[in-house]
Amino acid sequence: MSNEIKKAVILLSGGLDSATTLAIAGDMGYQCCAMTFRYGQRHSIEIESARKVVAAMAVKEHKIIDIDLTAFGHSALTDLTIEVPKNRENIAENAIPVTYVPARNTIFLSYALAWAEVLGIFDIFIGVNATDYSGYPDCRAQFVDAFEKMANLATAAAVENKGKYKIQTPIIEMSKAEIIKKGTQLGVDYALTHSCYDPDENGKPCAQCDSCKLRETGFKEANLKDPALS
Amino acid sequence: MSNEIKKAVILLSGGLDSATTLAIAGDMGYQCCAMTFRYGQRHSIEIESARKVVAAMAVKEHKIIDIDLTAFGHSALTDLTIEVPKNRENIAENAIPVTYVPARNTIFLSYALAWAEVLGIFDIFIGVNATDYSGYPDCRAQFVDAFEKMANLATAAAVENKGKYKIQTPIIEMSKAEIIKKGTQLGVDYALTHSCYDPDENGKPCAQCDSCKLRETGFKEANLKDPALS
Repeated sequence: MSNEIKKAVILLSGGLDSATTLAIAGDMGYQCCAMTFRYGQRHSIEIESARKVVAAMAVKEHKIIDIDLTAFGHSALTDLTIEVPKNRENIAENAIPVTYVPARNTIFLSYALAWAEVLGIFDIFIGVNATDYSGYPDCRAQFVDAFEKMANLATAAAVENKGKYKIQTPIIEMSKAEIIKKGTQLGVDYALTHSCYDPDENGKPCAQCDSCKLRETGFKEANLKDPALS
Repeated sequence: MSNEIKKAVILLSGGLDSATTLAIAGDMGYQCCAMTFRYGQRHSIEIESARKVVAAMAVKEHKIIDIDLTAFGHSALTDLTIEVPKNRENIAENAIPVTYVPARNTIFLSYALAWAEVLGIFDIFIGVNATDYSGYPDCRAQFVDAFEKMANLATAAAVENKGKYKIQTPIIEMSKAEIIKKGTQLGVDYALTHSCYDPDENGKPCAQCDSCKLRETGFKEANLKDPALS
């Protein structure tokens, strides 16, 4: 039996999906190094949520990286002149929403790859979800697979190990309700997480954006009360 | 005949290779948007060289992005405690050198992809060269091809256009001498470019690192004098 400690880099936004992904990685036996980005998003409360999640869970190291995606704008999340859509119907059936941030997951995964290479880690977890966010191209399995192939050609560690980077997406096929049930079972405290795209100045969720709506529906379908709202 | 203006994003470091790549893209008829990174490299002189190259050539827009790769270290270019190797023999035949920066080109291309998507551009030029820098995994054609495939799954613009991002690498198969001859023919002023990994405090090249050696050999084989040394 090998005594080698399995290690992973986990992308952690402070939201519900990534907190669950972190819990799943821990449950799989990985020692977790979490990575969070301050990328110019509307709400810095996301970063605070990530810190709280890290404090509450088993995390070996937490790195917060500053990158300025407002340099590009073009998304309601990084450009204050673009309004966050509210009360949309049939979220998953619509075209790519204006909350899409150009190449965001590509940039996040690239940084995760750099950090993983430095740490000698080959497993990277990202809480993308294709079911609820079908509008975001960089949340699909085919994107993640292509990134993994690229990563295994990009790095010195991959060349030296003949490519063994693995981008793990444990919640990619789950519904929001399934994610919440899984996380609850693993002890995730969802009161610490934040999902809203457009909170007020005190950090209170708007209850009307896509992300709030999906969260609300998820808790309802899971027959659970959202502890962040109490 | 189409009157549409062809546009491209060009990664520009301030070095000889990327300045030549910019000239080639311009010669191919592209209107060029240049992107440079201040990533914590030893020498900020590289950024100044990029500015000078931009001022001397036809560039529509120049974006300088601050990213902190010193957060990871692990490379002689971003960690001052690691020495830049000097006077190495058979540079191209050696293993991956300590000047390799983890996932650097992956991160650079990810940002270029984000900017290209915002600008509505589908052509990205990178001055990677597989001949002289065989030690860097992210300078190989197979890496660039894999990145291109990934880019065409990652972005909204790719989904809407059924994937037409093209990562162009015009100098990938050229020798350093061929690059210099091509650039000279296109009017590149190599006096403005900077190659040294470890310049002194006045920006003077060390003449001993891999990059200085390759540059010196390139000019010698091209039967040209390096104007940066006069």
